[in-house]
Amino acid sequence: MLHAVIPAGGSGTRLWPLSRATNPKFLHPLTGTADTLIQATVTRLAPVAALADTYVVTGTAHAAAIARQLPDLPESNILIEPSPRDSCAAIGLAAAVIAQRDPEAVMGSFAADHLVRDGERFTQVLRDAEAGARRGLLMTVGITPTHPETGYGYLQCGAVVDGPIRTVDEFKEKPSLDVATEYVRSGRYLWNASMFVWRVDVFLRELARQQPELHAGLIRIAAAWDGDDRDRVLGEIWPTLPKISVDYAVMEGAAAAGLVATVPGDFGWNDVGDFHTLGDVLPGDDDGNVVVGDSATLDGGKPEVLLHDCAGTVLVPQSGRLVAALGMRDVIVVDTPDAVLVCPRHRAQDVKKLVDELKERGDSRI
Amino acid sequence: MLHAVIPAGGSGTRLWPLSRATNPKFLHPLTGTADTLIQATVTRLAPVAALADTYVVTGTAHAAAIARQLPDLPESNILIEPSPRDSCAAIGLAAAVIAQRDPEAVMGSFAADHLVRDGERFTQVLRDAEAGARRGLLMTVGITPTHPETGYGYLQCGAVVDGPIRTVDEFKEKPSLDVATEYVRSGRYLWNASMFVWRVDVFLRELARQQPELHAGLIRIAAAWDGDDRDRVLGEIWPTLPKISVDYAVMEGAAAAGLVATVPGDFGWNDVGDFHTLGDVLPGDDDGNVVVGDSATLDGGKPEVLLHDCAGTVLVPQSGRLVAALGMRDVIVVDTPDAVLVCPRHRAQDVKKLVDELKERGDSRI
Repeated sequence: MLHAVIPAGGSGTRLWPLSRATNPKFLHPLTGTADTLIQATVTRLAPVAALADTYVVTGTAHAAAIARQLPDLPESNILIEPSPRDSCAAIGLAAAVIAQRDPEAVMGSFAADHLVRDGERFTQVLRDAEAGARRGLLMTVGITPTHPETGYGYLQCGAVVDGPIRTVDEFKEKPSLDVATEYVRSGRYLWNASMFVWRVDVFLRELARQQPELHAGLIRIAAAWDGDDRDRVLGEIWPTLPKISVDYAVMEGAAAAGLVATVPGDFGWNDVGDFHTLGDVLPGDDDGNVVVGDSATLDGGKPEVLLHDCAGTVLVPQSGRLVAALGMRDVIVVDTPDAVLVCPRHRAQDVKKLVDELKERGDSRI
Repeated sequence: MLHAVIPAGGSGTRLWPLSRATNPKFLHPLTGTADTLIQATVTRLAPVAALADTYVVTGTAHAAAIARQLPDLPESNILIEPSPRDSCAAIGLAAAVIAQRDPEAVMGSFAADHLVRDGERFTQVLRDAEAGARRGLLMTVGITPTHPETGYGYLQCGAVVDGPIRTVDEFKEKPSLDVATEYVRSGRYLWNASMFVWRVDVFLRELARQQPELHAGLIRIAAAWDGDDRDRVLGEIWPTLPKISVDYAVMEGAAAAGLVATVPGDFGWNDVGDFHTLGDVLPGDDDGNVVVGDSATLDGGKPEVLLHDCAGTVLVPQSGRLVAALGMRDVIVVDTPDAVLVCPRHRAQDVKKLVDELKERGDSRI
């Protein structure tokens, strides 16, 4: 069994106006059921991690909402960062706190706001990754690419270690389309979904080697975590920690040292990056129209959508009002209490531009 | 000078969700200014009719809203029908009440929810129509067709009477496209916009000839109108009046008797039948995007629309929320407190189908 760590941050700008800085995407029911993304993440991890061994790392803004959405999660497993210090501090804090409680632990880190279609396959892949972690490797779960995506980083795979486990020779930045096409054609590359499985002692040893200052700070914080002195130590040390991603701080150097391996994840992963992607992953009606929301709400009471001669639409009725669409193809309609968005699915990535414009205007609806 | 009569009824189903049975289109600011359609109608008529000689005929549901939107209109000029009895009863009631007050009056009847682009030309055309009315003709103002519209009835014009005045030989029902094309090509046909100008005595005489029962009832009601007995007489007689349109009840027969004439109206008329039409008639931005609403509200406070790379859209922000559109072409977005509509402009006529479906479902949001 694993210790599961769920970093919960990021506002999901391309999911505006649903996802906001104050109400980020992991808190929303974008799963095709009444579950929110973070609830679905915890449920998905249940076969490999006891709830007592499941941790969420988040900021002060969303800790209360997370506590309420996950009522059975032990309070002491919600690790609240005083301020954002990037992913290495967040994941490293969890590793250090877990190591205090169980020095032998194998932990996995999983984003709070991704979707997985095939839960059983996901569990199987994690068991393979755990086997690699137990033999002292820093394991990543790479995603088998379905297309030459330019929005993700890639893992360049090397020699077979054992079974499905292969070494990761290099972490590659987001590529151009030509390069991505070549990556996919070669069969040697996986998407980097920042999904990690490792022994906490191995990770902390590598952190100490590559980021001694960050390591020392996190160890001091973890030592104080379960005592009376946590707030003082955290308040003193946390703001001094380097702001750096775990990929850049640890994984790239570890890969160069031959310490990183991967198992391919072919379980229908989706990072729910925008409404178009969301429409692809959630079930639709016979014409491919997808209604995103709490299905319990959708089924009860007044109908929230009224479609007439529509196909391929993604509708997000989240204000209680009726969303009516007539004769629309491949369009996104998002309805929230203070803003409504309409855009074609192929422009879903550009929703970020609207948010940028609102930010410039000083509009609070971001 | 005229007596102006404004029948204010009809919910404008194709303008759902903005226009509702409880909040019909003439009460909405669809004019490109802060004015509502009925306010713009009264303003447009000011050069030809004193406010003391301007009447609105409406049902019980909207009398209070009309009284507030037209605060300077004399209360006694708001004629409230106890129940809808079609246009002949409504217009005939006004004619009979006006005849009581001024037997020599020339009255014009004008829908509460149409738009006119060129107010000066409109005034000139009405003066021509008034001249025809004074010589004892039942005048219509026909609209010079701009395209072979199948959604309107047509006036078949005959001999020249004097200046721009021509006889109307026949009223034609809504034609097929082939027939409408032939009408427009011939130059002999005008759109029937149900805009009438006549001496009240001439109209009432013709009503008496063709609809003696309706005439008798209206005369009895009008006689009681300004006295203590109005409610009793109205309550007794009104429900017994035949439900019939003025075109069918009076005008067709009068045309056959050679009593009807017309002047062509080339003043940029629009019946604001649907959102597409509304987009055509209101001013847009450089990309042809039209924002429909109270311009005072739109200019002050938070921006209500955010457009990025859009063209030809018709946006109706009427809930106070932000309406954001990205990469949309020729689409309609209507935002109201309890429903939002998205549809292509070329499907604007079919909005009625959505309303029909809601009606079937027993949904109150119609």
